[in-house]
Formats: sequence, C-alpha cells, structure tokens
Amino acid sequence: MFITLEGGEGAGKTTQIVHLAGWLGERGVPCTLTREPGGTLLGRAIRAVLLNPENAGMAPLTELLLYMADRSEHIHQVITPALTAGRTVLCDRFFDATVVYQGFARGLASDWILRLHELVFADVMPDLTLLLDLPSEVGLARARRQLEKGDRPTAESRFEDEALAFHQRVREGYLQLARQAPERFRVIDAARDESRVREDIRSGVEEFLR
Amino acid sequence: MFITLEGGEGAGKTTQIVHLAGWLGERGVPCTLTREPGGTLLGRAIRAVLLNPENAGMAPLTELLLYMADRSEHIHQVITPALTAGRTVLCDRFFDATVVYQGFARGLASDWILRLHELVFADVMPDLTLLLDLPSEVGLARARRQLEKGDRPTAESRFEDEALAFHQRVREGYLQLARQAPERFRVIDAARDESRVREDIRSGVEEFLR
Repeated sequence: MFITLEGGEGAGKTTQIVHLAGWLGERGVPCTLTREPGGTLLGRAIRAVLLNPENAGMAPLTELLLYMADRSEHIHQVITPALTAGRTVLCDRFFDATVVYQGFARGLASDWILRLHELVFADVMPDLTLLLDLPSEVGLARARRQLEKGDRPTAESRFEDEALAFHQRVREGYLQLARQAPERFRVIDAARDESRVREDIRSGVEEFLR
Repeated sequence: MFITLEGGEGAGKTTQIVHLAGWLGERGVPCTLTREPGGTLLGRAIRAVLLNPENAGMAPLTELLLYMADRSEHIHQVITPALTAGRTVLCDRFFDATVVYQGFARGLASDWILRLHELVFADVMPDLTLLLDLPSEVGLARARRQLEKGDRPTAESRFEDEALAFHQRVREGYLQLARQAPERFRVIDAARDESRVREDIRSGVEEFLR
C-alpha cells in the first residue's frame, strides 16, 4: 500500500507521518517512511543543479522536469522496491504537491501538470492520500514558531516566505484535488490538537483498510 | 520556421545543416543553427549528471526526463527567442531522435515518448523535418571513417558502438515516424553523393516554402 501525506506549511505532516509509521508497525504492517528528494545520489545531484544560483533563471518547465527526474529516481530506487517487497510506503509529500506548488507557484497549469504526472507515473499512484488541511494563517504561524525553535531544516522553509495569499491558493488547490479524487483522498482537519489529528489519521487509514 | 534534421549515424546531418544554413542565408533567410545540448549552462550541468559514471544505473525514465529538462532549457534560451525574433531555426536532431533512440535504446515505448513530448513541447513542434535516410551498414562505415580521421567529437560516438541490429531498428523507427507524420517529414536518400543530398534538401525546403 502506498500512502502519501500532503498539506500546506505547518500542517504537522512530518510529526504525523512518524506517528503513523509507528502505529502501523505495532499492528504488524512494516512501513518504509520516505520523502523527496528521497536521498538518492542522483536526487542530490539534481537538487544541486536546482539550487545553484547560476541556474536561477531556468524556465518553469525545466524546473518541473528536473523535479520529475528526481521523483522518477526516488520511485525507482526507494518506492517501487519497498512496495515490491510487500512493505507499506508512507511518503511525506508526493506529486500532488508538485501539482499544487508548481502549478500555483510557477504559473504552470495545474490540470496540465496532473495529466503529465498521470502519463509519466501512472503505475505509482498513491492508494491513499491524507490531506492535512488547516487555515493558512494557522499553519504559517505554527511553521514560524518551529523555525524560531530551530525544529525545521532551513531547506524546508523555501516556500514559507511567500505571501499569505499564495498559501491560501495552495490550500484551495489541495482541496480542489481532493474533490476531484474523493476515493483516494481523506481530508483531515489539522487545525486541532496533535492527538486529535493523530486519531483522525488512524481512523482514515483503518477505514481505508476495511 | 523551425526545421530539424534527423537521421542515423553517418547520414551527414552535421555537414548538410551547415550547407543549408549558408544557402538559406544567401536567399535572405537569417538562420540560427543549433543542436542539443544547445550550449546552455544548465544543459551542461544536466549533461554532467547524465555522464557521471556514478549515475550509470539510473532508471530509463529518469534519463528521459533529464534529456527533456535539457531540451526545455534549450527551447527557452535558444529556440524560442530565435523564432520570436523572426529567424529560421535549424536544429541538428530534436525530439524525434529521443523517440527513436530512447525508445529503442532504453526499451521505453516509443508511442508513449511521442505522446509525452507532444504534451510537454506542443508549442515547439518542428514545421519541417528532413530525415537523412540510408542503409545502416553504409552509415556506420562512414561514421567509422570519420572517427578514424578524427573528424568527429568523441561525445557523438556514444551510440556508435551498438550492434548493427540496433542501428537498423533506429532507421526503421525514423521511417515509421515519417510515415506517421508525412506532412512534416521529407525523407532524403542520404546514401548518394553529398552534392546530390544537398540538392534534395534544397528542393525539399523550397517545396515546403511554396
């Protein structure tokens, strides 16, 4: 089973995915916990190209294709082998994030990105996507507190400097994807206490497993 | 106008494209002559990733996406600006080569690559593609003579070591693409003298211009 966690900044994905892996492990479901770039050697080389300031003027399409090459290798080296070995894969953000962030952030049409991803990665669609949804103001305030406490790696704060309006579009983009694929998505209210969110995630997964 | 030259090893593309640019220039048609990787800084960085022996085990799909990222930047920095400025672009191999070589060489389905390219690069389809066609034995013998004389950069000889059967599949792949898009392709018999081939190319371009 391939499960992805999605959501805007400060939604608590990173904390919740660890809880979920532990809970599934206790129930005898071996999990592989991963996230992009996925730690492949090639992924790191691609990230170095993406982050090199000399390449800052690259076309949005070029950037998208580089992210997709990174994802392809992550699938090839990490996700597919784990699934083949019968493990459940939990991935912190996957292609829905590309549709939402690249679509909104870089002005590429999100419908078009979705079609492209379906054409390229048709055989590795998530079985279940947990969308941790919360108002953007709440999420941003949380993310800022974590940054101040030093709880987050700086690489993750790339999109956090964007204006609130941007994050609201991200939220709306995620909710739109969830409406388009209700059989795959479970929308979790992530504005509540961490323990409540954890319970909802478990219920969502249990319901899906039945 | 966007013209591409395609063909297997030893077909004479590199010589003929220079002739064609000169001939068009004399007729008052300013040309930009280019080829992939297209000399962009980002293209060179991507090539370095592709050619690094540590990355030799990458998935065929990853490789395809990296080539496409390179192409995207070549289009963004070289092809589109030239076309926008009213210049005719002559490109030594373009996406048909990917369909044929990656499809046959790496086992990806060529129909699928074609659909992917049409989805990603729909707005930069060549207006005219000149396919320099010749029997693979003849082309390989020519390419080998050029290598021995030192007339070719070694980077170009990457695919030349493949077996004859491979090159025959490449030739058949190109001819199949030409049959599928007869309005775009002109098939030139490249087994004859260079001067005859040059004349046929000019006739093909003149016919297309009318």
